[in-house]
Amino acid sequence: MKEYAFGVDIGGTTVKIGLFNSKGDLLDKWEITTRKENEGQQILPDVASFIQAKIAEKKVTLEDVAGIGVGAPGPVDGDGNVELAVNLGWKNLNIPKVLGELIHVPVKAGNDANVAALGEMWQGGGKGHKNLVAVTLGTGVGGGIIINGEILSGATGSAGEIGHLHIEDNEEIKCNCGRAGCLEQYTSATGIARLAKSFLEKDTRDSVLRTGNISAKSVFDAAKNKDAVAIDILDKFGFYLGKGLASVAVVVDPEVFVMGGGVSKAGDILFDFIKPYYEKYAFSPCANVKFTTAMLGNDAGIYGAAGMILK
Amino acid sequence: MKEYAFGVDIGGTTVKIGLFNSKGDLLDKWEITTRKENEGQQILPDVASFIQAKIAEKKVTLEDVAGIGVGAPGPVDGDGNVELAVNLGWKNLNIPKVLGELIHVPVKAGNDANVAALGEMWQGGGKGHKNLVAVTLGTGVGGGIIINGEILSGATGSAGEIGHLHIEDNEEIKCNCGRAGCLEQYTSATGIARLAKSFLEKDTRDSVLRTGNISAKSVFDAAKNKDAVAIDILDKFGFYLGKGLASVAVVVDPEVFVMGGGVSKAGDILFDFIKPYYEKYAFSPCANVKFTTAMLGNDAGIYGAAGMILK
Repeated sequence: MKEYAFGVDIGGTTVKIGLFNSKGDLLDKWEITTRKENEGQQILPDVASFIQAKIAEKKVTLEDVAGIGVGAPGPVDGDGNVELAVNLGWKNLNIPKVLGELIHVPVKAGNDANVAALGEMWQGGGKGHKNLVAVTLGTGVGGGIIINGEILSGATGSAGEIGHLHIEDNEEIKCNCGRAGCLEQYTSATGIARLAKSFLEKDTRDSVLRTGNISAKSVFDAAKNKDAVAIDILDKFGFYLGKGLASVAVVVDPEVFVMGGGVSKAGDILFDFIKPYYEKYAFSPCANVKFTTAMLGNDAGIYGAAGMILK
Repeated sequence: MKEYAFGVDIGGTTVKIGLFNSKGDLLDKWEITTRKENEGQQILPDVASFIQAKIAEKKVTLEDVAGIGVGAPGPVDGDGNVELAVNLGWKNLNIPKVLGELIHVPVKAGNDANVAALGEMWQGGGKGHKNLVAVTLGTGVGGGIIINGEILSGATGSAGEIGHLHIEDNEEIKCNCGRAGCLEQYTSATGIARLAKSFLEKDTRDSVLRTGNISAKSVFDAAKNKDAVAIDILDKFGFYLGKGLASVAVVVDPEVFVMGGGVSKAGDILFDFIKPYYEKYAFSPCANVKFTTAMLGNDAGIYGAAGMILK
C-alpha cells in the first residue's frame, strides 16, 4: 500500500493542506492563500506546486502518494465536477481532471461539508460507523450524509443541506436561501441569537441576557446558570432541531448524528435540549440513534479529503 | 451472461414469483399461498420447490439462472437479515442463507417497499434514473429510496419510511405508529378520507361528498368535477405531501419522485395539488425535481427483486 495521501480543503480565504500516512495520522498541515482572481484559475496550480514542494522537502516520491482528496465549497457532483463555486470564482471545472493533469496521482473531490462529514466518520466523532449524518451548527447550519461509508451528493449536490429543511410554517422573515421557516433560522448561532431577542421582547422576566451582548454562547452560558429565559429559548431551539433531525432520521436512518460547529462547543447541554424532542418526533425504530460531538474541528475537511483516498 | 432470474415478492397472503430474462422482460408470473404456520418455516422451502418445478417445466437448467431476488415485509438489512417480520412469523432469519441452501444460486433480499422502488427504477416510472424516491400512497404511505442504483436500507432498515415523517404539530389523533402528526395521517387513502370528513363537518357548503361513501377516490372524482369542498380537501392533502416531499428532497436530493399506490390512480390531478406546495417549500436547487407515476403496479415487487440480481 502507498504510504501517504494529501487532504486539501479549499476555502474562500485559505486552502488547508494536510499530509497523512496510510494509517490516517495527520503528519503535518499547512495553509496557503486562496488566489481567487481570474475566476480562481490559480487555485489548483498553487495547490499542485505546494504539494510538489512538500513531497521534495519530505523526501517522498510521487510513487509513495496514494492520491489527493479535495473538498471545495458549493455543489460538487460524484465525478468531482463543479458547475459553480461562487466563493472561488469557479465555473464548470472538473477538480480531479485539472489537478490530476498537474500532478500525476489519483484525485477525488467532494463538497466541503460532505467531505468534513467523511472526515468525522474516518477519524473523528463518527469513527466505527458507516452511516452517519454530520450536522454543523455554525453561522449557518450545514450537513453531510455518509451512506455505507460513501458521501451522499444527490442529484444536484444538495443532499444533506439540512439547514434548509422547512420547519416552521409561521415565519415571515426570509432565510438567506429566499424562503422562510428554514431550520437554520432557529438553530444556527445567528438563529439562536435571533430567537433570544424575540423571546426577550415578549417576556418580562429578569434575565442575565438583558445586559451585555446576546450570542449563542451567552444563551448557553446563561442556561448553564439556570437562567429561566435562556432555558426557554434553548427549549425552542431543541424543539426545532430535535424535530428536524427526526425528519432526517426517517429518511436516511443513520447510526449516529455527529454534531459540530461553534454551537456544539456548548457541550453536552446541547443534547439535553435536543434529545427530548428528537425522541418525541422520531419514528420508533430510529429513536435510539446515537448523538456524538465532532472531534476534528477545522481539520475535519483535510481529514475527510485524505479519507476519500485512504479509507 | 446467465439467461434468467427469479423475482420473489413475499406478502402476508400470497407469494408472487416472476421469471425474467436478462433483458428484464417478465416472461411468466405466478402466485402461491404464504404458509405462515410454525413461524413461517415453510415459506422459503415452498418458494424453493416452486422455482425448482418451474425450472424443470421451462426446460431451463440451474446454470442458466443468475439468481433469485426476494422482497419481504418488514426491515431487512443490507445482508438480507430479517430480525422480525410480524406478518410472516419470521424471527432472526437470513433469507439469502436459507434460500441459497435450498436452491444453489445467488440470493439477494430486501424490504418489499425498497425492492419495489428498485423495480420502478429498473423497468418502471423511474427508468433511466439512479437516484429516486418511490412514494406509495395506499392504505398507508410507504417509501423506498434508491441511491446510485442501490437500495438505501438504513441502520435499522427504516430508511425511506416517509409515511412517518412528522408533519403536523397540532394533531391529537394517534397514527398507527403511536405518535401523532405523521404524513400518512393526511396523505394515505385513509388519511384523505379522514381529512374529508373533518372538512365536511366544519364547512357548510354544498358538496357531492355529502351523499354517498367518502373515499380518496370519491374526493378526487369530486375535485375533477370542480366540487369546491373537494378541492379544498385536496389542497390540504397537497400542502402536507408537498411539504413532506420537500423535506425528503433536501435530505437525499433525488432526480425523481415516483408516485405509486391506489391514490396515484387519480392521475395527473395529483401533481396539480402537490407541486405548488413542493415548489414553495423545497430548497431551490431541488425545486426542479421530476415527478412521475409508478408503472409496474403490483408487479413492482417481483421486478425489483429480479432487478437486485440483473440490473
